[in-house]
Amino acid sequence: MTTSVRGGQLARLLGQWHSLPGRHRSPDYAALAGAVRGLLSDGRLPLGVRVPAERELAESLGISRTTVTAAYRSLRESNHLTSRRGAGSWTTLPNGHRVATSGLWTPIDDLDMIDLGVAASAAPAELVPAARAAAEDLPRFLGSAGYNPTGLGELRDAVAAAYTARGVRTSPEQILITNGTQQALDLVLRLSVPAGAPVLVETPTYPNALAALAARRARISTHGLDSATGWDAELLLGALRQTRPRLAYLIPEFQNPTGHLMSAELRERLVAAAHATGTELVVDESFVDLPLGGTVLPPPVAVFDRHSRVVSIGGMSKAYWGGIRIGWVRASAPLVQRLAALRVGVDMGSPVLEQLVAVRLLRDATAIVTARRTQLAERRDALVTALREHLPEWQFTLPTGGATIWAELDGPISSALARAAEEVGVRLAPGPRFGLDGTLERFIRLPYALPAEDLIEAVKRIASVRYDLDRAARPEWRTPAVIA
Amino acid sequence: MTTSVRGGQLARLLGQWHSLPGRHRSPDYAALAGAVRGLLSDGRLPLGVRVPAERELAESLGISRTTVTAAYRSLRESNHLTSRRGAGSWTTLPNGHRVATSGLWTPIDDLDMIDLGVAASAAPAELVPAARAAAEDLPRFLGSAGYNPTGLGELRDAVAAAYTARGVRTSPEQILITNGTQQALDLVLRLSVPAGAPVLVETPTYPNALAALAARRARISTHGLDSATGWDAELLLGALRQTRPRLAYLIPEFQNPTGHLMSAELRERLVAAAHATGTELVVDESFVDLPLGGTVLPPPVAVFDRHSRVVSIGGMSKAYWGGIRIGWVRASAPLVQRLAALRVGVDMGSPVLEQLVAVRLLRDATAIVTARRTQLAERRDALVTALREHLPEWQFTLPTGGATIWAELDGPISSALARAAEEVGVRLAPGPRFGLDGTLERFIRLPYALPAEDLIEAVKRIASVRYDLDRAARPEWRTPAVIA
Repeated sequence: MTTSVRGGQLARLLGQWHSLPGRHRSPDYAALAGAVRGLLSDGRLPLGVRVPAERELAESLGISRTTVTAAYRSLRESNHLTSRRGAGSWTTLPNGHRVATSGLWTPIDDLDMIDLGVAASAAPAELVPAARAAAEDLPRFLGSAGYNPTGLGELRDAVAAAYTARGVRTSPEQILITNGTQQALDLVLRLSVPAGAPVLVETPTYPNALAALAARRARISTHGLDSATGWDAELLLGALRQTRPRLAYLIPEFQNPTGHLMSAELRERLVAAAHATGTELVVDESFVDLPLGGTVLPPPVAVFDRHSRVVSIGGMSKAYWGGIRIGWVRASAPLVQRLAALRVGVDMGSPVLEQLVAVRLLRDATAIVTARRTQLAERRDALVTALREHLPEWQFTLPTGGATIWAELDGPISSALARAAEEVGVRLAPGPRFGLDGTLERFIRLPYALPAEDLIEAVKRIASVRYDLDRAARPEWRTPAVIA
Repeated sequence: MTTSVRGGQLARLLGQWHSLPGRHRSPDYAALAGAVRGLLSDGRLPLGVRVPAERELAESLGISRTTVTAAYRSLRESNHLTSRRGAGSWTTLPNGHRVATSGLWTPIDDLDMIDLGVAASAAPAELVPAARAAAEDLPRFLGSAGYNPTGLGELRDAVAAAYTARGVRTSPEQILITNGTQQALDLVLRLSVPAGAPVLVETPTYPNALAALAARRARISTHGLDSATGWDAELLLGALRQTRPRLAYLIPEFQNPTGHLMSAELRERLVAAAHATGTELVVDESFVDLPLGGTVLPPPVAVFDRHSRVVSIGGMSKAYWGGIRIGWVRASAPLVQRLAALRVGVDMGSPVLEQLVAVRLLRDATAIVTARRTQLAERRDALVTALREHLPEWQFTLPTGGATIWAELDGPISSALARAAEEVGVRLAPGPRFGLDGTLERFIRLPYALPAEDLIEAVKRIASVRYDLDRAARPEWRTPAVIA
């Protein structure tokens, strides 16, 4: 873990801090403090790291030490820095803030904040009856010690049956129950990726997958998705052959954040290439339940797997609810056993009650998932209409499923826009969160998981600051490297 | 992760395989296969690892290749090995087996097996009403995305209040909710222990803590507990000063497995020494709720902490139920924020429903914990009486709390005894599971978490095989190195 950030690093993260947010000209120290708060709130500047000494930062930014001193004082007053005499200052966050998905921090009880940082919806009505029924079912298990690292048999049965119904024969021994898709990924990485091992990911990709890979100190290479057309088969397979990664992490169904759906042909070629290069192919199926408007899904990637090269991970966050922390790994039975053995040292297993709730929700899968798809299609259409009306310069491909639009902005303004939007009550996950090293400033992810009226209001608010931002800040922008 | 085991390694693990279990003389190949099954079932031989080629193992053991071939065939027939032409053979387990706590594998639905591998009891009667009430409380949260990496505010409040009641002032910002104590340890290790960092632990200690440390590739040094008297203050503080570990993991309350309780004086000196050596002191309070028979607890270790050197971890597995996967970290607020940020890449957060159940159980803490203590005291006494009657040669100190007796056997027979006991329906965690590198063969952990009649029956069964084992195998035993 990083425990301190040097002056040059922080200066690079801050970029054009003095022109942001730009709507009302503020003193330099206030602009600097605001930019640091922005980096903290979108997770690019970690919590608990020591910031550079005032003199060092002043030198790196080419400004006076007095400005840095005043900025640090302002950050201390707002509880974004904590200092101890002789030991320096650390980044913190004021009380009452919490971490949300994608590493964003959101204030609790801020009811006026529209959170577009999270591609997750409210829970379905079926959840409370399922929880009630699970509570009544609990006595069957109370005589045991309650540990089950592979998962309850009946939940493994249900997940295996769902894979089989999707066309890939699966036995319960091939299923490991986890605390959500994120843990599924983390466990697989722990088993398969030693420090420094080469890993291939898409860019843009899911920020928390990047976080898990960073924790493994993986050597990451990327395949850039075209925002309009998605994967380029030749480039993707070429990247596999060239880097021969230990593992590749891909999201073939309604890729997060771009929304693209991988063709059956590429799936088949991908599995063959992974076999040839000795690569473990980790396929994140978080959005597989959510094709919209008659979209037909290609076969699961695992269908093409003859050599146990494919590890599928999935969970209930997107089609059901994020507060249900149940996900799974589908892999060969021996790999599942190794993951379960590893898991005893990680967290022993998933809670019994939660698994019983999941069993009941999966029994109702057809009703719950159908309703969620109808809801998401309506929300997507509302978001698209609002974007075309209020932000007509933004470009995007209409997603055929999933929960996210990946919009190309009319300038490399994503981080600036996120900071400005926060001031008018919209939380955004800026483009750079989905890539490596501050690229993707020309893009933003817009999830359509919230109710239509919230999405429309959010777009209006974004549009209001977008044009403000434009007038004040545009002339000063440099174009950073963009991967698209 | 280990992916293959060499001939010499496996030979070392197998030890005196040809004299075990020794009750009925079987052919060499069957004895060898049985010994491998024993290593698999107690977790010392991991699953999914490639075993040596037949020729290599034959050479390492100094036996004929025919014997190894027949043993491997037997293991394949019982589904403990899976082979693929040209690629070798991997360890597996038959279907219907699952991982239990402490890395042990137990068959599902084996109702006649008395599981003494696990120091965990059945759930309290209050659990089902708590689950029902939590289900009714769920609607408050359903409009949110459901992610809370630090934990629900009301649960953090309750845990902080419990610490304050124990005499160590604690704010909710100092609490991170985790999936059980094991995840609390794993997260702390991830943040604080880079690969190769020096770590100090007790020996014997909790096997799953050793597993978590092994996953971090920590450089482990040990402080040996005296089975009769526990920690030696001078040796423990000397070990700290000498090795200056990055982190020390200790269990001061009813140490698992020895049951010892650390004095207030040593707690205070330990914190001062950790401050002097720059060591993070991780204190596992799993058993702190369980003093028995009027035992008075010293102040929590964190009481003596003036410099944020102490990280306390705890959970609900022992006083409540292992199937409730709720634990916590108590640390400085900045460290809690860093752990929460890390956790987003690990598993996002704990389930909402499970946390609501925990809130309700903690409200009933007095009733639940008092009943558990009464129950454990009765069970401890029943186990002690049975041991004195049926296995009078075994030595132990009567624990004043917790759930485990650490018995010194009348020979270095712990692993052999565990294998033999399994045949008569008793699962045991042999001594070497609680230490490093196969030592502690003279000891066994006997938890008293099960009903008294099961404990008495288990002791009778153990005694029956103990003396059988003695007659057949004793003359052939070598004494391995023992840390005590």
